Amino acid sequence: MSSATIIDGKAVAAAVRAQVAEDVAAYTAETGRTPGLATILVGDDAGSAVYVAGKQKACAEVGIKGFDHRLPADTSREELLALIDALNADDAVSGILCQLPVPAPLDGVELTNRIDARKDVDGLTIASTGRLSLGMDGLRPCTPKGVMLLLEHAGVAPQGREAVIVGRSNLFGKPMAQLLLAANATVTTCHSRTADLQAVCRRADILIAAVGVPHLVKGDWVKPGATVIDVGMNRLESGLTGDVDFEAAREVASAITPVPGGVGPMTIACLLRNTLTAARMVGA
Amino acid sequence: MSSATIIDGKAVAAAVRAQVAEDVAAYTAETGRTPGLATILVGDDAGSAVYVAGKQKACAEVGIKGFDHRLPADTSREELLALIDALNADDAVSGILCQLPVPAPLDGVELTNRIDARKDVDGLTIASTGRLSLGMDGLRPCTPKGVMLLLEHAGVAPQGREAVIVGRSNLFGKPMAQLLLAANATVTTCHSRTADLQAVCRRADILIAAVGVPHLVKGDWVKPGATVIDVGMNRLESGLTGDVDFEAAREVASAITPVPGGVGPMTIACLLRNTLTAARMVGA
Ligand SMILES: NC(=O)c1ccc[n+]([C@@H]2O[C@H](COP(=O)([O-])OP(=O)(O)OC[C@H]3O[C@@H](n4cnc5c(N)ncnc54)[C@H](O)[C@@H]3O)[C@@H](O)[C@H]2O)c1
Ligand SMILES: NC(=O)c1ccc[n+]([C@@H]2O[C@H](COP(=O)([O-])OP(=O)(O)OC[C@H]3O[C@@H](n4cnc5c(N)ncnc54)[C@H](O)[C@@H]3O)[C@@H](O)[C@H]2O)c1
Repeated sequence: MSSATIIDGKAVAAAVRAQVAEDVAAYTAETGRTPGLATILVGDDAGSAVYVAGKQKACAEVGIKGFDHRLPADTSREELLALIDALNADDAVSGILCQLPVPAPLDGVELTNRIDARKDVDGLTIASTGRLSLGMDGLRPCTPKGVMLLLEHAGVAPQGREAVIVGRSNLFGKPMAQLLLAANATVTTCHSRTADLQAVCRRADILIAAVGVPHLVKGDWVKPGATVIDVGMNRLESGLTGDVDFEAAREVASAITPVPGGVGPMTIACLLRNTLTAARMVGA
Repeated sequence: MSSATIIDGKAVAAAVRAQVAEDVAAYTAETGRTPGLATILVGDDAGSAVYVAGKQKACAEVGIKGFDHRLPADTSREELLALIDALNADDAVSGILCQLPVPAPLDGVELTNRIDARKDVDGLTIASTGRLSLGMDGLRPCTPKGVMLLLEHAGVAPQGREAVIVGRSNLFGKPMAQLLLAANATVTTCHSRTADLQAVCRRADILIAAVGVPHLVKGDWVKPGATVIDVGMNRLESGLTGDVDFEAAREVASAITPVPGGVGPMTIACLLRNTLTAARMVGA
């Protein structure tokens, strides 16, 4: 049996990071400024701390200055809003992200939306979401942007192809649909209420799963020759696994991302890229 | 041959308007305030003048106070921004719309986005677009909202059904997709680059055409028993016609909107509804 090309997200992400490092150096040489990323972490969730540390380390590696704000779980709403206002006004800060979730009673949506759209490197504010939908320039959410880069790397042009996205989260599914639509794919969004998920998936030239259910997508849900992108990150006792039955799907698809080592590494790479883009926009 | 139910948009729109009139009266009795709609028309385009006059007349009929701003084509950007700022601040004005297109060199996108999202009764600002996509409350674009009301009236529940929208404009196609997704349909968006439009349309339980090409959608593009919504408004010598071959499609569909008298009348009805919603939000 033929077997699909494995899309090596680790290698693509490393290439993106190397390119960002080069571009940051050129930007700094040209402007005398260093792009800066401010991260805000509230409380002591171990997982969130690991994520934020990873982002700060990645910044350091490409020459982006990190501003690492860690605050106790009982920090008040007012203090956080004031911090975000100060970062919005700070010329040394090009990008800002508030690591979610934040502890109750804080409102992650309110905090996120306090970030100036020009510094919204996660691309999750109302303004960035509206700009994406309306086809205006702006910062795009990192994971869907990473998927677009993987498709490009794999030589898959979305124009005129049927793209099916399983999952409709604000974080991934919805912005993924907008990016593929802007790239001229015919886009279908599926979710927990979709009647015949298998039949819809089988129509896809580009099939993207972002559900959070291990191995939901079976081999016979994949159209022969399709490109399969697995966004799922499910922690099982046996390790990290995706939303696609990889071993079965790779026999049918023409290209497929593994988990781990597929989409996952792209998110931070795109965060770095967004931070440089934000620096160019705000001139910081 | 069996023939589809004709969805009578004129009757549904009249019912919505009568209900808004009742709700406005109740709102005024309760609060002592009258909802107000400010329209801004720049230049002397005859078609735009007719649209604006229709909106103002409809307001008067339901007890909404109209503020009818008509300005010469050479009005400056600064004057218009100042007018919108004043209307944003005016407690007597619940809703504001800037009739598009505006004459060059004015920028319709810039002017629209100056409108406070809470008064954005056309639902077309970046903020309203972002709120819709993120599932937050807010004012929704009138024509897609009108289509949702027609589906409801026709007893068509989108949940779990395949909805196909042909057209991806900011004005209609994209917000229509978001509304149907929020109503739990499986949503596909098609456009000029879709490879096999007929095949995609034939999958639809709910087929919506918003293209601007007379009779693009043929009878054999319609799945037997589907609901067909024709948003097209094409002015031919023979009169107004839609994007669907109505005579052929009605033999296959279970329900269908005519042109004229289908979607068209819903737009103003929803504008009135949005103005009352805005009044409740801003307390004006
Ligand atoms: N950096 C990354 O690699 C990255 C980024 C974002 C998300 N993820 C992963 O992607 C997955 C999804 O996360 P999310 O935040 O986008 O989604 P979510 O958890 O917010 O929502 C899941 C979505 O899947 C849909 N769904 C649930 N059960 C379904 C079923 N049985 N059939 C069809 N659809 C179903 C729901 O309708 C919902 O839209 C998770 O595993 C998450 O860890 C990874
Ligand atoms: N109040 C109302 O009833 C109302 C409101 C909005 C739009 N409309 C009508 O709906 C139609 C569409 O208007 P709009 O502003 O949404 O769209 P638009 O004119 O901005 O865009 C047309 C869309 O159709 C797509 N398209 C063009 N040719 C196509 C083809 N051959 N096959 C498939 N797709 C194709 C394009 O990709 C584009 O997304 C017009 O006739 C307009 O008058 C009516």
